[in-house]
Parts: sequence; structure tokens; C-alpha cells
Amino acid sequence: MFTLVGLGLGDASDITLKGLKAVHEADVVYLEAYTSFLINSSAEELANVYEKPVLVADREMVESGEVLQEASDKKVVLLVVGDVFGATTHFDLLLRCHEQGIPCRSIHNASIINAVGCCGLQLYRFGQVISLCFWTETWRPDSWYDRLMSNREMGLHTLVLLDIKVKEISDENLARGRNVYEPPRYMRINEAIDQILEVEQKKKGGAVAEDGSTMSIALARVGSNAQQVVAGTMRELRELDFGDPLHSLIIAGDIHTCETEHVNLFRSK
Amino acid sequence: MFTLVGLGLGDASDITLKGLKAVHEADVVYLEAYTSFLINSSAEELANVYEKPVLVADREMVESGEVLQEASDKKVVLLVVGDVFGATTHFDLLLRCHEQGIPCRSIHNASIINAVGCCGLQLYRFGQVISLCFWTETWRPDSWYDRLMSNREMGLHTLVLLDIKVKEISDENLARGRNVYEPPRYMRINEAIDQILEVEQKKKGGAVAEDGSTMSIALARVGSNAQQVVAGTMRELRELDFGDPLHSLIIAGDIHTCETEHVNLFRSK
Repeated sequence: MFTLVGLGLGDASDITLKGLKAVHEADVVYLEAYTSFLINSSAEELANVYEKPVLVADREMVESGEVLQEASDKKVVLLVVGDVFGATTHFDLLLRCHEQGIPCRSIHNASIINAVGCCGLQLYRFGQVISLCFWTETWRPDSWYDRLMSNREMGLHTLVLLDIKVKEISDENLARGRNVYEPPRYMRINEAIDQILEVEQKKKGGAVAEDGSTMSIALARVGSNAQQVVAGTMRELRELDFGDPLHSLIIAGDIHTCETEHVNLFRSK
Repeated sequence: MFTLVGLGLGDASDITLKGLKAVHEADVVYLEAYTSFLINSSAEELANVYEKPVLVADREMVESGEVLQEASDKKVVLLVVGDVFGATTHFDLLLRCHEQGIPCRSIHNASIINAVGCCGLQLYRFGQVISLCFWTETWRPDSWYDRLMSNREMGLHTLVLLDIKVKEISDENLARGRNVYEPPRYMRINEAIDQILEVEQKKKGGAVAEDGSTMSIALARVGSNAQQVVAGTMRELRELDFGDPLHSLIIAGDIHTCETEHVNLFRSK
């Protein structure tokens, strides 16, 4: 039996009773620790709260299907931060279960996709989600711009998810065959705003105002006790420090009357 | 103190540990029981599992802000099915808290908005969500069609939420001032498909194929143990009986290669 369990967004206490029951009944519990991370809990803390050993599963173990190896005769749980289907790779595991005749199920939880409602904008007025990744000197992807542009054209809000790098190996270490991991990195709101404005200045489609005057909402540590929501222009928000990860950003579309009052709760000035 | 607690989608055991702690610490616990309902648990069952009385709050009590009356000097919890910000009215309560100086917080959970990932389509390839409501002889709203159409034009999937009527009073009883509630009603997938096809046949924009050959996915009781996911053409799905509520529907946009294999898991034939 293979069970995907969503952990929600904040800490060990965001698991559901149903999820915790699955953990308690499991023979093996893995934590998927490369597509996201819990804001306030490490694997050790989860293990303490759940009173159960929690093994960290990295990208290789998940993508290779290694986490399924024992699932045909044991109860295996894979803990996933947020909800269980945030990343395609988790659904792929269910597919492999079907192919291998392993019974499987999933236990849902909150993810940034719905928790973003905490900003006061209406969930059904969001268009496509976009993801920004860290640029390097030679790799500066901007294919998200077209989606931001279509959302703009329809007056829709855009949730912008920001890159996370966990257990990355530098080019140098990779070349030398050394399994030395870089410290985890996460993109900050300021960097995301710079990236968006730079692409706007190049493409000039009007997805956002070039001068940074487009209304946006900064989200930091959503779902945790240290959650921060600040509304302001892109220019205003890029000057602020939102502290610890995780950060997300909303580029507002047309703000309806009933949303204005909500968003004003969070104005930076 | 006022706390909104998301209950998730299935039954009493879908509450988070954090949510349950808030319930246990509360002086008064309300269940918001008109925008949705838990598939497998009544207020009495929640009260049994949580070992705490649970009062049912109807539309009037929530929209009038009556549920906040005691929150300035007591701990009041409002339980909300799904996540806490599915309906604008819940955010309005937080706004009132701010106006009245009542401390407030929210504890997230899964909602259909993210749990829809269980169908195998990728969450970031969904466009705007649309909602269908029950038609009457004189009221047949179809303003959702434009949004379905824009999603189509961009190749995006559309999550279609179906109407729920709880504690409605018939026109006759209303006219006679009788507070007699009609039995709860929920829209079925078949009715939703008929409504969409009828509007397509009238508007002919091509949001879906008029002959019902557009690929769609029926979702019934998502997040519960009796969850059902069936993929097929609209014509195929409208002939099937998906049983007890709640039902939702996905109108597929362009299905990417990596999604095809996932969706095929759920093919009706």
C-alpha cells in the first residue's frame, strides 16, 4: 500500500488526523524534500511530533520510484509539503502503482494554490499560475511572460511561484564527481520583481507596468504563524525585506470593488 | 479571538492537528453549513469526533456577522468545509474583525481548487474556475460561458463547480412568511453537462464541441474514501450515474503528453 500524505504549509501540526493515522499505521515513512519544504519543521521535528521515524527522500529516490520498492508488501507513506499533486512527479508515482498493482491513495491538504485566498483576492479571479526560476548568466528563461500577459488581457490575477533549490550540486563539484550539496536557496520577492520588470522592459507587452506601478501582493510563509501579506506596487514591494522563506508573489489583475477593501487591509503604506 | 478553520473535503478526520487544537481551545464552535458540506460528516459527527459541541451557522448568522458577536472576549471558531477562503463571505468576516479590533487568524486545509490535481491534469494548466447554478424557468444565467471560452482559446483546463442549495425556502413559503426549508439539492454532473451543451448550442463559440465529444473528467466526492474520477467525452459522462454528492466537472483543454497517461487511468471505456 502506497499513501501520499499532504502536510500543508506551516509545521508538523498542519497534518490532518487522517494523514497522521496513515503515518502511524505505516511501516515506512518518507518525506519528499526537494520540491518544497515545510516552513517551520525539519524531518526530525516531524518524526518527534508523529512519534515515528521519517526518512528523507531526495529527487533521485522519488523520481526513480525507489520509494515504491517496499510498497507491494508493506505500508509506505510519502509525506509531501502542501498538497500531494503540486508536482507532476507525485502523480507519476500513482501511475507506477497502478502499473505494478500496488494499492494507492492520497490524503489532501492545503497548498499555496488555494491558501493564496488569504490575500483577499477571489480565488476564481486567478488565471494560470506561473513559476519563476533562478537565472544564471547563460540561462534566463522567460516563457512565463506569455501566460502573465494572457492573464493581464483578461483582467485576472496571477500567482507567481518562486524557485527553490535544495540539494543542488555545483557545476564544479558535478564535473569532479563530488556529491557535495550547495546550501538550499529560495528566490525572494525582490528578485522575482526584478526578473518580471526586466522581461517586461524587454518584451514591452504591458503584462505589468514598466515603471513598477502595477499593484501586487507579497506573500511570505503562508500558512505558518509568521505569515506576512503585504499589498503595494511592485516598486514599493521590491524595497521591502520579507525575511525567511517561502515567498510567493501575486500580480493583481483588475481588482473588483469587493476585493479592494480586502486588499487594503494589507497595504504597505 | 476569531479563528477560521478549514475542514478539508471528506469527513471529520480531515481536520488538521492545528485546527483541532483551535477547536479544543474554543469557547464556541460554529459550522458554516450553507456554502458547502462535508461529504461524510454531519455537525453531530464532528461534535463527537472533536468532543466539543458544534453549532450550525446558517447564511444569516454568517453574513450578518452574528458569529462574531462573542469573539471580542471569547474564543470563537468557525469551521468551514474545504479551505477557509473559498467564499468571499469568509474573508468579509476577517475584515469585520479588523474593523472591530478582534484578533483573528485562519487555519488552511484542502479545497477542490487544489484537490482537483487528483485527476492527473496539471494544476498550473488550469484557467479560471467557473460555477454553474441551477436554472429555473425564468433564470438561466450563462455568463460563465465567456470564461470557459477564454480558457479554451488558451488551451487551458476548466474546473466547473456545481451548485448546492441548502436551507432554501420555496417562493410559496417565502410569500406566506413560513420558514420551511426545502431538502438540500446539489447539481449532478449530468445536469451540468446538459447546461454547458445547451449554452454552446446557443452561442456556438466553440468552448466545447456541440456534439459532446470534448474530453472531460467527472469528479465525485473528492477527498473522501468514496472518491470517483472518470474521464470520458461529455457525451459519455452524461450517461453515467456518479451517485452521492458532491460532484464537480473538468472540461479539458489541450491535454499534454505527460497528462495523457495520467488521465487514461480514469477512462470510462
